[in-house]
Amino acid sequence: MATTDALTPERILEATEEVLRRHGPAKATVVDVARALGVSHGSVYRHFRTKTALREAVTQRWLDRTSRALSGVVAGSEPPETRLRRWLAELFAAKRRKVGDDPELFATYMVLVGETSAVVNRHRADLTGQLARIIHEGLERGEFAPAGASPEVLARAVFDATGRFHDPAYAREWADPGIDAEFTALVDLVLRGLRAP
Amino acid sequence: MATTDALTPERILEATEEVLRRHGPAKATVVDVARALGVSHGSVYRHFRTKTALREAVTQRWLDRTSRALSGVVAGSEPPETRLRRWLAELFAAKRRKVGDDPELFATYMVLVGETSAVVNRHRADLTGQLARIIHEGLERGEFAPAGASPEVLARAVFDATGRFHDPAYAREWADPGIDAEFTALVDLVLRGLRAP
Repeated sequence: MATTDALTPERILEATEEVLRRHGPAKATVVDVARALGVSHGSVYRHFRTKTALREAVTQRWLDRTSRALSGVVAGSEPPETRLRRWLAELFAAKRRKVGDDPELFATYMVLVGETSAVVNRHRADLTGQLARIIHEGLERGEFAPAGASPEVLARAVFDATGRFHDPAYAREWADPGIDAEFTALVDLVLRGLRAP
Repeated sequence: MATTDALTPERILEATEEVLRRHGPAKATVVDVARALGVSHGSVYRHFRTKTALREAVTQRWLDRTSRALSGVVAGSEPPETRLRRWLAELFAAKRRKVGDDPELFATYMVLVGETSAVVNRHRADLTGQLARIIHEGLERGEFAPAGASPEVLARAVFDATGRFHDPAYAREWADPGIDAEFTALVDLVLRGLRAP
């Protein structure tokens, strides 16, 4: 079949997301994915050796969309403080969109995320790595303090401090009426903490 | 019976905690509590009009232990920054002890906490109120900035920023090897954010 020839990992992951959306994380199987693509399940296993590997890859892909969207902010040319503020705002906005646009798919991915700490740790490392790049630049330019601090340690602190606005455990609070003001107050506090005196 | 005469709300709540510990949150009933006290369930209902009221009261009592322990730090005579740091450290320590000393009771209370947002909101208001008192003093003395900021808004920002170190959703991470260093880095960042230039 023509479809088999063009069977790429990306096509399999697209179909997997669709199957997860339709059947939910408990019932979705590799056979469902193969059927949706019109291929044998052996063809799927040639790209993803186990069901677990397939579930991890689709979760990674979902998380990577956020990291990729944010990497543009890291690469910008504005002052580090402006970029840091925008990065945090865009992370919050991206997470909110993921919940708001498709709550069922979000719930599905929350189940998958709970299964695979390795993928989640890699995602957190990606994001704190991006933060560390901005912070490193701020320290180098003397705009952030304390001089000589580790960008990685500060990045982790900033990431932890803003958890309420990106950790899905708090997703239920993201539509609260005061949430934007609370986000701004927290980011202001964190940025004052980073700013060189 | 003599026991009935001395039936105080506090004795009922003690017995309720013991019943919850023995039977778990799903199975514990008011009849179990009455039996443990050697009284009729009517006697219990005279103090707590519904099972829900009893469960909320016992949850409140459990949370109040933490607030009470921390109120001593608020009332201290050291500089606001010292007290704020100690308050955050004692909150983290108290929460860790609650998980570590009796994980099953902790899990039970997590179920109860999930049932009653009013009690949880009141607890958060207690804690942020304590923080606001320390921050208010720091602002008054000119040790905290920005001048004219709302102690309540800053208190909420500090509380949110430190969520990883007191929100039970993160309890599983509290034994991680790097957790104390991460706590210190975050508190340092937050305190730099509060300190007057």
